Amino acid sequence: MITRAEQKSARLRAAQMIRDSEIRITTEEAEKIDVVDFGLSHLETEGVQVLTLVQTERISVKVLVLFSNQTEPEHWHPPVGEDPGKEETIRAVSGTLYFYVQGEDTFKHGFLVKGKEEVYTLRHEIILKPGDQITFQPGEKHWFQARDEGAVMYSFSSVARDALDQFTDPDIVRIVKVVE
Amino acid sequence: MITRAEQKSARLRAAQMIRDSEIRITTEEAEKIDVVDFGLSHLETEGVQVLTLVQTERISVKVLVLFSNQTEPEHWHPPVGEDPGKEETIRAVSGTLYFYVQGEDTFKHGFLVKGKEEVYTLRHEIILKPGDQITFQPGEKHWFQARDEGAVMYSFSSVARDALDQFTDPDIVRIVKVVE
Repeated sequence: MITRAEQKSARLRAAQMIRDSEIRITTEEAEKIDVVDFGLSHLETEGVQVLTLVQTERISVKVLVLFSNQTEPEHWHPPVGEDPGKEETIRAVSGTLYFYVQGEDTFKHGFLVKGKEEVYTLRHEIILKPGDQITFQPGEKHWFQARDEGAVMYSFSSVARDALDQFTDPDIVRIVKVVE
Repeated sequence: MITRAEQKSARLRAAQMIRDSEIRITTEEAEKIDVVDFGLSHLETEGVQVLTLVQTERISVKVLVLFSNQTEPEHWHPPVGEDPGKEETIRAVSGTLYFYVQGEDTFKHGFLVKGKEEVYTLRHEIILKPGDQITFQPGEKHWFQARDEGAVMYSFSSVARDALDQFTDPDIVRIVKVVE
C-alpha cells in the first residue's frame, strides 16, 4: 500500500519528469497518473508511475516513469479469452533503461533488489537510450530498471488488462491500495 | 508524384520539426520518414509526412507532420477481412490542428483547398492543441489541416493498412510514386 501523500508526491514528481521530457500532457492527465507499488509498500524500490493516454478495446498507450533506481518487477502478459495476451513495444524517451529478458546471462549494469534475487530470474540485459525501442510478444517475461537519472518511456500495446498481468514474485498484488 | 529531391527535402524538414517537438528519433528513423503526396503532385498543399514507429499485426504508432498550411485529404479506414477497420487516436504534439468530422457545420478557422470544395465534404471543426487528442472509430471520415506554424501529432491505432484507406477525392492514389 501507499499513503495518499505518497501518491500525491509521486504523481507530482512523475508529472514533472514527463514534462521535462517535453511530452505535453494536460493538467487532467497529470492528475490521473497511476502510482503503482505492486502491493509491496516500498514504492521507491519496486514500483512504476503510469499515465494512460489511450485505452480502448483494441489498443493501449501509456507513458511510464521510473524514478531513480526504481525497478518494475518481473512479469508477463498472459492470454485472456480469445486474446493471445498483450503485445507491447517500449520506447525510451528520457534516461537510460535497463531491460532484462530471457536469454544468456549478460547482467552487468543493473542491480537486483536486495533479498529478492529469486523473483528476478531473467539476466539477459538490453539497454535502451532515448529513441530506442523493444517489442515483447505476449507471454514474454521481462523486468526493467532505471538508474540515478530515472527514465520516461512509452508503452504502445494491444489492449492492456493490467489487473491480469502475472508476476514471478508471489507477494505482488497488482491492484494498488491507497490509504489515507 | 514527387521528385527524389522533394522527397529528401521534405524528409529533412519533417525530421527537424519532429526534433523541435522534443520527441527523440534516431537517424535511421529520420531517414525513413514517408513523404505522401496522395498522387496529387502538390505536396505542400495536400500531403503528409509519416514516421512509423511501430507496425505489427495488431497495432500501429506513427508520428505525422503537417507543414505550414498543408492539408491531409478527407479519408476513412474501411473494414479489411475480419478487421472492422482501423481505430485511430490522434494526439497533438506541437502546433494547432484543425480536424473536420461528421456533424453540424462549424467551419471557421480552416480553409478549403482551392477548386476542391466537393471532395472536402466535412465541415464540423475540432481544434486540437498540444496534449489534446481525438479518437476515430473505424469508417469514420475525417480530414485535417495545419495553419502557418505546421503541426506534429501522434497516430496511435489498431493495425494500419494505409494502402487500403479510402478517399473522397477519386484522383487520390495512396501509394507514393517517387521519380528522379
